[in-house]
Formats: sequence, C-alpha cells, structure tokens
Amino acid sequence: MTLTGELLIGATARRGQGGAITGYDAATGEALPTVFSGATAADVEEAAALAWAAFGAYRETALEVRAAFLETIAQNILDIGDSLIERAMAESGLPRGRLEGERGRTVGQLRLFAAEVRAGDFQSLRFDAPDPERKPAPKPDLRLRNIALGPVAVFGASNFPLAFSVAGGDTASALAAGCPVIVKAHSAHPGTSELVGRAVQKAVADCGLPAGTFSMLFDEDRAIGQELVADHRIRAVGFTGSRAGGTALMKIAAERTVPIPVYAEMSSINPVILFDHALANRGAAIGKAFAGSLTLGAGQFCTNPGLILAIDGPGLDAFIAAAGEALSAMPAQTMLTSGICKAYLAGVARLSGHAEVKTLAQGLEGAATQGRAALFETSAKAFLAHHDLQDEVFGAAGLIIRCADAAEREAVLDAMEGQLTAAIHIDAADHDAARTLLPKLELLAGRLLVNGFGTGVEVSPAMVHGGPYPATSDGRTTSVGTLAIYRFLRPVSYQDMPQALLPEALVR
Amino acid sequence: MTLTGELLIGATARRGQGGAITGYDAATGEALPTVFSGATAADVEEAAALAWAAFGAYRETALEVRAAFLETIAQNILDIGDSLIERAMAESGLPRGRLEGERGRTVGQLRLFAAEVRAGDFQSLRFDAPDPERKPAPKPDLRLRNIALGPVAVFGASNFPLAFSVAGGDTASALAAGCPVIVKAHSAHPGTSELVGRAVQKAVADCGLPAGTFSMLFDEDRAIGQELVADHRIRAVGFTGSRAGGTALMKIAAERTVPIPVYAEMSSINPVILFDHALANRGAAIGKAFAGSLTLGAGQFCTNPGLILAIDGPGLDAFIAAAGEALSAMPAQTMLTSGICKAYLAGVARLSGHAEVKTLAQGLEGAATQGRAALFETSAKAFLAHHDLQDEVFGAAGLIIRCADAAEREAVLDAMEGQLTAAIHIDAADHDAARTLLPKLELLAGRLLVNGFGTGVEVSPAMVHGGPYPATSDGRTTSVGTLAIYRFLRPVSYQDMPQALLPEALVR
Repeated sequence: MTLTGELLIGATARRGQGGAITGYDAATGEALPTVFSGATAADVEEAAALAWAAFGAYRETALEVRAAFLETIAQNILDIGDSLIERAMAESGLPRGRLEGERGRTVGQLRLFAAEVRAGDFQSLRFDAPDPERKPAPKPDLRLRNIALGPVAVFGASNFPLAFSVAGGDTASALAAGCPVIVKAHSAHPGTSELVGRAVQKAVADCGLPAGTFSMLFDEDRAIGQELVADHRIRAVGFTGSRAGGTALMKIAAERTVPIPVYAEMSSINPVILFDHALANRGAAIGKAFAGSLTLGAGQFCTNPGLILAIDGPGLDAFIAAAGEALSAMPAQTMLTSGICKAYLAGVARLSGHAEVKTLAQGLEGAATQGRAALFETSAKAFLAHHDLQDEVFGAAGLIIRCADAAEREAVLDAMEGQLTAAIHIDAADHDAARTLLPKLELLAGRLLVNGFGTGVEVSPAMVHGGPYPATSDGRTTSVGTLAIYRFLRPVSYQDMPQALLPEALVR
Repeated sequence: MTLTGELLIGATARRGQGGAITGYDAATGEALPTVFSGATAADVEEAAALAWAAFGAYRETALEVRAAFLETIAQNILDIGDSLIERAMAESGLPRGRLEGERGRTVGQLRLFAAEVRAGDFQSLRFDAPDPERKPAPKPDLRLRNIALGPVAVFGASNFPLAFSVAGGDTASALAAGCPVIVKAHSAHPGTSELVGRAVQKAVADCGLPAGTFSMLFDEDRAIGQELVADHRIRAVGFTGSRAGGTALMKIAAERTVPIPVYAEMSSINPVILFDHALANRGAAIGKAFAGSLTLGAGQFCTNPGLILAIDGPGLDAFIAAAGEALSAMPAQTMLTSGICKAYLAGVARLSGHAEVKTLAQGLEGAATQGRAALFETSAKAFLAHHDLQDEVFGAAGLIIRCADAAEREAVLDAMEGQLTAAIHIDAADHDAARTLLPKLELLAGRLLVNGFGTGVEVSPAMVHGGPYPATSDGRTTSVGTLAIYRFLRPVSYQDMPQALLPEALVR
C-alpha cells in the first residue's frame, strides 16, 4: 500500500490544507517518505457532520453486523502485511518482535470486542413486569437498554502505535458500543496511522456501513484536536497521553454548552512495594526482574514501575545491587520520538541533580536518540518534602524510596497521587503486613499485583487499566479489557411501549 | 421526638455556630418552632474527618450487615410516627396522603437497596482464569470487583422532603455502595430533616457501625455545601435541585486538585408529543389527563409535563379545550416555599407577558403562598426563535407548541435541551410516525413513555431517572432505581493475589 498523506474523511481521502506533518525515523532522526497533510476546521466540520449522519444507523446495526465489522478491521490490518510492521518500526524505534506482538494484541482486541458485541451483555437489558392491578397506582411495564453515546473522538498514544492508536482499544470499544469514531492521528507515527486508518476505512466499505462511521485527521499542532473535542456532535473522548494534554481536553469538554465525558489515561509511576521477608529471601532476584520490567520497551509504558518502596535493610541492598548490576549492562534503547527522548533526558538530569537524590546506576550510553536506564534513590522524608519527586519520568528511570520503617512507608503511600497499578512483592510471612496496606492500595490504584510488575496488561474481562486521578481522568473506568465498552453507553428506559415500537433487543 | 436544631456529626448532636435557619409553615408563611443551627467550616472538617475514618470499615461491612443497616434506617423512619408526617406537611405544604405515600416510597427504596446489597450483583465480580503455560507470556490470575468511591455529599431536594432528601435515593444508594454520607440538609424542611437524620444516626448506632458513616449539616446559605464538595475526603456528590445550584457544584468539583463526579439532577420540561390519530380520537381525554399530571403536587415534580408538542388541527383544539376546562376549575395549591412560589409567579408572568405566547387558561386564584395552574400556547417558530421558552417554570405551568407540520415538530425536538423524560401519545395508526421520532427521543431523554406522563417514577431495576445534560450533570446514570448504586463504585483488578489476601467476595 502506498502512503499518500491524505486525511480520511468518511469514504473519501484527500489532502488537507492545514500545516504538514512528517514521520521521522526514530533511530536516525531522518525524515521518512510521505508528507502528511494537516486538517483544517472545515475538515473537522465535515468529519463531525458525517459521523453524526452515520450515528443513527450505525448505533442500531445488528449485533452480528457490528461484530463482523470489528473482525473485518482486524483482518484488514493483518492484510497490510509486513509494510505495517516496517513503517511502525521506523516511526517508533520499537523492535520487530514487539510490534508483531502489538499487532497481535490489536487484532485480538478487535476480535474480543466482536465477541463481546455478539454476546450482547453490554446492552444491560432489564425488564420490570407490569402490574395493572397494583394499588394505589398500576405498575408500568419498564424495559431498559444501553444505547451508544454518539460520535467519539480518539487520541492515540505514541507508545503503542497499533494497540492504543488508530484501531486500538478506545476505537475498538467505541465502535463496539455503536459509536462512530474520529481519530486524531498521533503525529509520531503518521504513516502507521494512515495504513491502519485505511484498513478501518476499507472495513466500513466492506461491511456496507455508513461512510461517517470512521474518519481520521492529521494535525500539526493541537488546534484540530481541540476543535474536535469542542464540536457539539462529539459525545465522548478517548485519550492516552500526557497529563497536560489530558487535562487540557478535560477543560474543553467541561466548558462546552453540553459537557461530555473525557476518558484520559495520563500519568502513573506505579509504585512497587517490597516487603521485608520477600526482600530478605530473594532481594537480588526481585531486583533483576525489576530491571527487566523497568527497561521493557525503553521504559515507555504507562505501567512502567517507576517507584520502589522498601524498608531499609540488607534485603534492599541486595535488591539494589542486583538491579544496578543488571541496569548497568543494559544497552540504551531508541526512544519513540526525539521529543520524548529529550523529556526523558531532562527528567533524568533533574533527578541526578536533585540534592536529595542519589544516582545508583545508569545503563550503557547510546546514540542521541536513545535513552539509557537510570536508577535513583531517595529517602521517605525527601519524597514527602518534594512533591516533584512524584512526577512521571517517561522512560526507563526508577526511583527507590528507602523508608526507615513501616510508618514512613505508609506516609509515602498516603502522599501519593492516583496510580494505574500498585505492586507488592511478598512471601507468605509478609501476608499480615501486606494485609494492612491493601485497603490503601485499593484506593490508590486500579490494579493491584502480587509478585509481578504492571507491564504486560492483559486484555480480558477482569482487567482494569485505569485508576484514580491523575492516573486517569475517571477512575470509574478502564481503557483496556471488555469493561471499556461501558464508557460509551448510557441507559434508556422505555415505559409502556408497544411491542411494535420497542427496540428489538427489548421485545419479549 | 423533640426537635433540637442541632447538627448531627457522627454520633454526636450539637448546636452549630453558623447562621441559624428556621422552618416555615408553607401555607401560612409563619415560622415554625425550633431554630436550627448552621454549620461552620470546622463542622465540615469534623464530619469529613469522621466520614473518612469510617470509610475503611464501612466499605468492607459484610453485605448482610449493610443490608440490615438500610432496613434499620427504614424501620427507624417508620418509628418516628405521625410527627414526621405532620412536620413535613407543615414545612412543605404537601398534603398528608402525598407525604404518607412518599414515606412509603422512602422506606421501600431503602429496603430495595437492602435487597440489592444482599444479592451482591453491584460488586460486578469478574474472574479470568490463569494459564501458566501460555506463550509467549503466562496468563495471570485476574479478579475484579467494584469498591466504594468514598464519602459522598448529598444535597436533598425541596420537592421530596422524604424520598429525595436526608434518607432519600442518593443517600440510600451511596450507603448501599459502601460510602459514608454527609447530608447538607435542605433549608426548606429542616425539622423533617432533623427527624429523619436522627433516625439514620440511630440506625448507625443500632447496627454498631462507625460513627462517621452518617452526618448531617444545616447551612444558612451555600458556603457550607460548597466547602463540603471541595473537601478532599469527599469523593462524589449527589444533588437534586436547580440548574444554577447543580452547575455551581459541578464547577467546584471539576476544579479540585482531584476532580470528583457530581450526580446532579437539575431541570427538565419533559416534552409530551401528541400524535395525530391519538389527538383526533381522544384529544379531550388526553387533555383532561394532562391537566391532572400537570397539577399533581402543585406541579412541583422534576418530571412535570411542561411542554406539549402537537400538529395544528381540531384534535389539538379539543385537547386544549378539555385541558383548559379542567385547569380553570383547579384550586390553587400551596407551594413548597415562598421562594419557589415567587419564582413560579415570575415564570408565569414572563410567559403571560411574552409577545409570542398566548395564555389559554389559569386555575383558580388562591392565597399568596399558593400557585395556580397556567396553560400557554406558542408557535413552533416562536419556540425556535426564543430560547428562553425552554426555561423550566417549576410548578403547574404548561406550554403548548402548535406545529404547522411534522417538519416543525422535528425542528422543535432538534432544538430541545436534554430531558429526564419524553412522552408520546399514540394510537396504533400513529406507530409509523412515532417510529421515525423515537431515535431522536432516545438521544433527548432518559425515559420514554407511551400514553402516559412522566410523573410517577417507579423505583425499580429498569427505571432511568436521568437524562442528557442539562437535565442531569451525567446522562450515563440514574438517581432512581437500583442502577443508582453504580454511581458510587469503581472497579479494582487483583492480579495473582494469594487467596489469603483476596477480598472475601473474590475468593473461590
């Protein structure tokens, strides 16, 4: 498939008149072929009008039709073949194996939502039987179903050019719910976005769905995305990215004439708590495993374990020695974009230069586009005194907080902002100590893990990839797993409606 | 039970140092016995600290204990006896039958949530079986449950001094979810509030629950309620009242360091669409029924049918004649407060004096504290040209929009703001016409009714008492019916957690 750099607006593809975007080779920093055309306000208007026009028919598609559509998107993505992987490798600097795996995850996610649509549980059907004889007033016939909210604006992430981007989790769950989608393509991987966007556009045509079911816009800065969120036909927003970006969209959404929900997955440092017995028995092993999780994908995961909490002792020293040794030998890794690399280096420099922070280890030096792992240590007192030590450093940087005792450990947790995950490393003898902390951790994060790290997010019914603000904008939801579909639905009740007029799902 | 006018803060009752509040006899305007003491910021602080201290234990109470607590509240309310009805009659001006019915509804609601808690479905338990052999990575053991959000601030409504107030739907569903509640008592019925508040406080003690599970504060103006919503220990808000009040709380909640959800039920004019055949066949009968619904409870219902949409013709004339005749004979009714009565009279005067609005009928004149019903008519063109004709007039005022044709009727619906309910009156011959409008109505309102009016809101599983903004702050939710519990919950996922540490509900 040849890239054209065009906007995908409903069934059409055309060059936009906004500022141009270029994809860059993440490793070399060189511009990649194809100049992508930016959208203008007129393109937002057209895409939103088409999405709204499509909404009425699309939200009432038969479940089988909608499921087949999701499966067709999955197949069309596979049909792109290796050119998708190659372009994504160039644009993201991520290795082949990772991107092939991510493609599998993307396709699997679409198929999982197809199954979810077929099963139909997301409609949450409820029936209250009438009782015409009830006194003092007859009981009405009430039936309830969920309906789709309306067109959804999706902002993909840089760090998952497939699984959290054009046809990623937000798009899959919104389409599954019956919502048309307008994607604002991430400027870090425009070529990957066009390839996947065309696969979705083709699926819309393959399945005979209304053209406005899907559109995709490029944008050289933030204006187009902001216009999208402000458009009255957009009824919800899915976003994965920075806290600044997410909160900016939350503000626009809250100030609309009719406010809309924003599901923004933003920042998280994912605390890992090492308990005494586990540390004493296998501190070194945990340290080595931690180094592996910290550096996975150059540390560019929302669930990257950025913070280690442990009580002072020889177990912690063994953990640090092993983690430091492993990290010191780690080659630097190409980061997603030069901007992310610069921000990472700045974050590492900030920690290195912090009066209260000690640098424990650094990975091997690399090229200018690469990030080397870094491990730091501070005290609980310093962490409590310096709020900026909670700021996420996106990349393979970890901060160990050496606590004097359990009370300090608890104080650190009390001071911590909302998180996506919290992990504990425990042996059986740690159970009692862990039990006292679990209620705190439940209020802190969306997912609690035992003897593992948050990286590797299962796409399944019991997954929560979400958490209290500011990890996400709405801790009542998840952006991964089948529960994600409920973000794009609302209940409607039908009272005493004749069978002839009821939605099919409610006829019985 | 003797009223003391004290604040209820956890297990204690004491006079507040804030400005005093007095209850008034709605019919006579005379001050009722007991001066109620207003809270100060220190009282908010103490109630919030107690609620937070209670939260940890309360959210993990055994389901049976929590269900019994809700039932105990119900019984304690009944045990107050007739003094509750008498005080509520005086403070609200509502008749005995209505308030006895409302007490039944309040008690029934608490018992329904008790049953819901016992059934346990609200926990939304999910289990993903592990697969240690899976390649390339083992599949973890994942289990999910909903947990309570945290302490909830509840703002009761003036128009349901029992069912939407201190122990009303918001309180019942928040307590059912495992959230402590702090009620800001409505100043229109402080005596009723104290009686019910003491019944809840006693139930907390009866059931041996943590004292901070429930508190109730009086406030002479809005400052205390606003401080409550801004307090970092409050994690959600339930509100029933005006659009100005609701949006003010939404703004405070959105601007907190950690934003929280506000479930505000605000304004709605509840359009009623009369279709041609139904009008032709039984216009007069519908008109008479409409007059009954419009004037029920002096029209002081969120679901009061304030807007009638119909196509010009003799059926509509028959409807108007019958409705006008019925309304003209209706005695004026005491309104809830002098403020509400004044606002109603101002709204009626605004419509009477509107150049594009014709006054069709008025009810009988009454005392200064009473509202008389009023029926108005305008054209679709005028409605579309004057946005203020959508403003809710809280009370028994109805506006008929005479449409030239179906296109005008559709244009009016397109211009309409989000609503709690939309009703259609149809005969079988109207089905095709109704079918074309239903998708529009689904996007407009939370509940669609056929051949009825929105007044009379069933408390049941399939009820939606909610709807798109500005009917409520969050159209994804309902404030009546068992679904209301989900407003106060969020999912947490547990990965590879040993049985010994799992929450009991997830052990299996």
